[in-house]
Order: sequence, then C-alpha cells, then structure tokens
Amino acid sequence: MALVIQKYGGTSVADADRLKAVAEHIAFTRRRGTDVVVVVSAMGKETDKLIALANQVSSVRPDREMDMLLSTGERRSMALLCMALAEMGIPARSYTGSQVGIITDNAHGHAKILEVRGDRVRDAIAEGVVAVVAGFQGQSLGREITTLGRGGSDTTAVALAAALEADVCEIYTDVTGVFSADPRVCPLARRLARVSFEEMLETAAVGGRVLALRSVEFARNHDVPLHVRSSFTWEPGTWIVPEEPDMEAPIISNIAHDLSEAKVTITNVPDRPGVAAKILRSLAEADVNIDMIVQNTSTDGTTDMSFTMPKSDLEASRKVLADLVSELEASGVTTQTDIAKVSLIGAGMKTSPGVAATMFETLAEQKINIEMISTSTIRISVVVSRDDVETAVQSLHTAFGLDSEVSYSAPLPERR
Amino acid sequence: MALVIQKYGGTSVADADRLKAVAEHIAFTRRRGTDVVVVVSAMGKETDKLIALANQVSSVRPDREMDMLLSTGERRSMALLCMALAEMGIPARSYTGSQVGIITDNAHGHAKILEVRGDRVRDAIAEGVVAVVAGFQGQSLGREITTLGRGGSDTTAVALAAALEADVCEIYTDVTGVFSADPRVCPLARRLARVSFEEMLETAAVGGRVLALRSVEFARNHDVPLHVRSSFTWEPGTWIVPEEPDMEAPIISNIAHDLSEAKVTITNVPDRPGVAAKILRSLAEADVNIDMIVQNTSTDGTTDMSFTMPKSDLEASRKVLADLVSELEASGVTTQTDIAKVSLIGAGMKTSPGVAATMFETLAEQKINIEMISTSTIRISVVVSRDDVETAVQSLHTAFGLDSEVSYSAPLPERR
Repeated sequence: MALVIQKYGGTSVADADRLKAVAEHIAFTRRRGTDVVVVVSAMGKETDKLIALANQVSSVRPDREMDMLLSTGERRSMALLCMALAEMGIPARSYTGSQVGIITDNAHGHAKILEVRGDRVRDAIAEGVVAVVAGFQGQSLGREITTLGRGGSDTTAVALAAALEADVCEIYTDVTGVFSADPRVCPLARRLARVSFEEMLETAAVGGRVLALRSVEFARNHDVPLHVRSSFTWEPGTWIVPEEPDMEAPIISNIAHDLSEAKVTITNVPDRPGVAAKILRSLAEADVNIDMIVQNTSTDGTTDMSFTMPKSDLEASRKVLADLVSELEASGVTTQTDIAKVSLIGAGMKTSPGVAATMFETLAEQKINIEMISTSTIRISVVVSRDDVETAVQSLHTAFGLDSEVSYSAPLPERR
Repeated sequence: MALVIQKYGGTSVADADRLKAVAEHIAFTRRRGTDVVVVVSAMGKETDKLIALANQVSSVRPDREMDMLLSTGERRSMALLCMALAEMGIPARSYTGSQVGIITDNAHGHAKILEVRGDRVRDAIAEGVVAVVAGFQGQSLGREITTLGRGGSDTTAVALAAALEADVCEIYTDVTGVFSADPRVCPLARRLARVSFEEMLETAAVGGRVLALRSVEFARNHDVPLHVRSSFTWEPGTWIVPEEPDMEAPIISNIAHDLSEAKVTITNVPDRPGVAAKILRSLAEADVNIDMIVQNTSTDGTTDMSFTMPKSDLEASRKVLADLVSELEASGVTTQTDIAKVSLIGAGMKTSPGVAATMFETLAEQKINIEMISTSTIRISVVVSRDDVETAVQSLHTAFGLDSEVSYSAPLPERR
C-alpha cells in the first residue's frame, strides 16, 4: 500500500476549524487507500507567543528550557488533531519526537537529526492507525528534549519519509506551490508543476521561503519526492524531484529576489594576497554569514572589497569590521541597506550558453545598474538597487519566457 | 543537608510576575542552606482552556490524547520557572514525569503512581541544581504519557518526597493553611497550626478542598510531613503530621461543610433483606459514588431508602434509579439538591464521649433539622438544609471552642 507523509504548517492548524479541515483531508487520503503519517507544527503563532512569554519571565533563557517550552506547541496541535480524527472515525495516535525515536545531537535550539528509529510509527501503520508526529523536535543522545530550529517541522517530515521509505512527502502550507517568481512582485508569475532538488536548493539559498534549505537537502540526499501544496485550496502544487536527464526543462525555472541583505564595502584596502581570506575568516569567527564577495580592480595599489551579509548581522559585525579596517590599513567602511539580490535559477543553464548575456542585456535595457555578480552552475545572482527590484524581476521573467497568461489579482497571504 | 519538596499550584504560577515571586522564594530557601526540589502545576486556568479547546475540536476526546494535550501545561510552567531561576543565578533544570521516572499504571486521565525512580532528580540534587518537576503526570508501563487526575500535582509532590526521603513536602496554594472551618462561612475560623493525617483525610473526604484525599493518604502511608502554606503571604501555614499519642489535641479540630451533594430517596421500598446492597451495587456499576445511606424504620412493610451522591452524578443516575424503582417495586424517587453536609472532625473524639450529643443539642437549639447522620471514628457528619449551613457551622464552631478572637474582614479568594 502506498504511504504518504503529510506535513501541516502552523497556519494549516491555526484553530479548531483548520484542524477539522486537515482531519477531513487526512480522512479523504485514507479513503483512497493510502497509509498516512502526519507531521504537525504548533498552532498559528503559538511558538511566537511562547517566546514572548519567556521574554516576560526572564532575560536568561537557557536553550534546554526553551526547547522544553517550545516543544509543547506541537504536542498540543497533534493531540487535538487526533481528537478531530477520532470524531471522524479515523483511528489516530499522536507521538512526541522522543516517542518516535527522532534522535538528535545535543545542540539545543538547532539540533541535527542523527537517526529516525520510528518503531512506534511502523507499528501504528501496521495496525491501520494514523500516526500524528510532533514536528520540530527530537530527543538527544543525552535523553533531553531538543528542537530542530527554523524549518524544523519540514525536516522532521522529510526525515520520517526517508526512514519509512514513503512514496511522497507532502508539505502543506498557505501558498499553492513554488512560483516562477514572487507573485507579490511579479503578477505574471506562474506556479511550477515540477522543480528539481538542485533548483529548489538554489532558490532556498537565495531567499526563497517556501521550504527551508536543510529539509530540501535532506530530501535530495535521501531521494524523498516532495510535493508542496496548499491546505487552503487542496489543489495539486509543485513537485520537487530529482533532475531527470531527459526532463524537458525550461532553461530558467524561476527568478528569486531577496531584500534581507546589506552590502558592506571596505575602502582602499592595500592590494596584497590573503586580504579576502582574512576578511572572511574574521567575520565567520563572529558568526556573520557572508554571501557574495567582490574585489574591485586595483588602482594605485589599493582596492575596494565589497560583500553582502544579512541585515540582521550588521550590528554584530561592526566591531569586527572596525578591527579589520585598522588591521588591513584600509580607509574605512561603507554600508548600503537599500539593495536587492535578484537571482535566475534553472537547471537548463548548464547546457544553454548565453543566459548571463541575456540577463545583463535585459537589465541594461531597463537602465538597471548591476552592483555585484555571483554565479553557481545553475544560478546567476546580481545585486541591484532596492528601487529596481520589481522592474528587474518582471523584465527578466518576461525575457526568459516565464510569464503566465493570467495575472494575480490579489497579493498572496504573508508567508508565516 | 535538609531537602524540601515545594509544590506550587496553578494560582501560584499564574503569570510572569507570580513565576518570578516563586523563583525568589526558591532562591530564599536555597540561601538557608536547604536543597529544593520543585513540583509545579499548569499556569492559572491553562488546563481549563485546553479542555475548552478540545471541546471545540471534537466531541470525541480519547483519554490518551487528552493526557498528551493536558500534560503540556505543566511543561510550560516548569520551563518558564527554570528561566526565572536562571536569571537569579540559581541553576535549575526541568523534568517531565517521564524524565523523572514517575511510573504509573495505564489508566489515562486518572493514573496511579506505581513507582518513582527519580534518578535524574537525585543527580540534580547532587550537582546543586534545583530540579523542577512537572506535576500531575507520569509515564505508563506502556511508555505512554499519563495524567494523575484531580489533585495530581499534590500527589506528584508527596510521591517525590517519599522517594527522595525529603524532610518536608511544602504545598503552596492560595490559602494560608487549613482552617477550623471555611472562613467564608464562619468568620471566626482560625488557621490550624497542626492537623493529624487522619483528621485531614476525614476533612478531604467530606468536601475539604485544600488537599486532595489521595495525596494525604499517600503522605500518611509514607510518613511524609506536609506543610500547607500560601505563596501569596509566604507565612507559615498548617503542618499535617502523624498523630502523636501525647499530642495535646483539641477534641475537635475542624468543622467542614459540603454543598456539592444531593439527597435521593427511593420511596416505599418493600422491606426485605438485600435492598440496600442492590441499590449500592447498581449505582456503583453506573460509576455513581454514594456517600451516606439511611434506611428509615419500616412501617406497613415498606421503607424509604435515602442516600447522598454528588450533584454532578445525578444526571447519570436517573436511568439506574428508574430501573431500581421498577425492579424493587418501590413507589418512586425524590431528589433534593438544597442540602448541605456538615461534619465535625477531631482525633480527640475517640477518647471524648458526648461529642455527638453536644453536636445534636447545639443544632437543636438553633432549630436546625437533621436529615441524615453518618459517623466514623473521628468524624460525625449530618445532612441539613442548605439554608441552615452558615448557622450550623458557626454555632458548632462556637460550641466546640474553636472561635478565633479576630474575625476575617474579607472573604478569601476562591480556591482554584
């Protein structure tokens, strides 16, 4: 019998009515003769509320105790979902991360899954019972309750799918799938029927927020087909699958943009070997994630070094940057926060020369200045001014033949 | 080093400020050089809110899933309390019922503790860490999360105190101790400095709500001294201790009353052997708890059988009672809900004749009609009209010399 893992995010189980709708969809899936294992997130904004409560109680929040606190959110939603299923006559049983045997390392707050034992879930399937598993949590080797951090419930679902050799892992969320661009910025964006793991990884890495990077990596490494779809419309969404050699893929699958980064420039750095390495090492030691890095052509023996980092890391990096200026004998630091990163992603890029040329020509026609460039095998990213992002995404979307015939009339709900 | 178990009820940890006040008291206790293990209930009305949410989601609430849901309440309060302690520089660690090894039977919703392993709590004490344990919950032999039912957190505290051979188990609540009568009904009631386990058991059995019956039984059976006190005033409260032979006990320690029962009478039952047994058995099979039972003197070959039961069981007993009437060939059933049970409790009763006589004389002087009577070695209970309860309690309180010299000016907060 086919086995499907269904993961429901916070908005999908936000209240009693949503929980009942989800229970009905699980019942519907079962009636088609499919075994179902469910993974749930905490209800709606529950996790945020718990964090706010912790802030009220104490300025010191030990990681272990935060995990104890936050792990209760999923436990509530899973127990309630089992009750809703029971009312529909579907036998269901909820399991905590510990009960399922999701074994993690000891890194509270951002634990990594080491092993999924899953014995009790296998027993439930054999008995014809729907197992409802708490997302986002596990038990450490030291027998402590751990949480997996951002995107943790997606990771739980994919890890369970891999361990149970499920036929598909369905990720239910509040958007209907993966789009060729963000419909709020590009009204002619279309939903993609299929995307390869590699394309999805690149998209997640450059700011796409539909799936967390680590869950896509896990799915790719364990060959778990993912299906991203909406729990509000229940219509088929986007399949994320291995790249097939004969896949008639369009050259470019999507245009992503990211407004969360800032550009930092260290000016007049003496041009000698090892400078870039020095900058990267110092910032890495301060836990600052550097994304793009560019070194200008040297004039008069000095050069400007520019790089991008999350705006949220700017504050933490000030001291390191000041130290670097004096250590490198540079003249100063400038910071730009009004930038946007626009990325073209497509597996077809590998075999289609001229993509970069088309991209740069398109932006030039729109008189958009490119400040930085970085590339991977299947991605080209450029940094432009924040003011140019809509024009850049829309013109590239048109230039690469991605435009849908219908326009989105209303913005999608904010992704939570 | 002395070891104290401190149990904090829902009102004691109702919000961030209350949690901080509790953390300060724990810090204060530690500074006196005492090891502390803490047991907490869920915050304020959290458990009631979860039950309401479950009702919204489903009319079917499997016991196992209710336990999964409700057990999260204590987990939140204990994690938050550990954070408040961390801020004060007190090392603390929270433990679920499973982590502590509170092993119960499989009766979800009203599980019985079979064993307290407590290894991790012992380790925490040895490391100088305050262990904060989730009340009300355990892990069953079948490795499921269970809850202990009403008064469960008190039972957790007493069971831990017994397992760890604590010097005292302090029960913090929103009243300042055990009173000679309910101060809301009897303004001259006084707080008792000491009460024996036996007296406390009788009080709990006849509607006293300060401590649940089972936690007192557990404490008596394992010789755990209990100290009931307020987390709002922090003043010393009432000690519940074994009865000492030379204890200069007053004859009567307190006057309890209970408005939660109804009186049911089956009229004109043919007077033959086995009728009382038949009634009790039928109602027990319907899970109805019969308290007092009285058979009137037989006249004309028939008799009236009266008994009391919780008002909340009335609905469930209607069918059984109707069946009994036809089976016993009785004439009908009458129900009275405007009754009150008033009880005298005192270990001194065993050696002091005339207590019942004084009680009945006192009530007669007040022209209070006694409808039913039942007694144990250290208790006499009577059923009177609901309208007479204040007069009955106050006049008995005076007659047995319990009146305090000061009157309570304001009613105590409602016990939650």
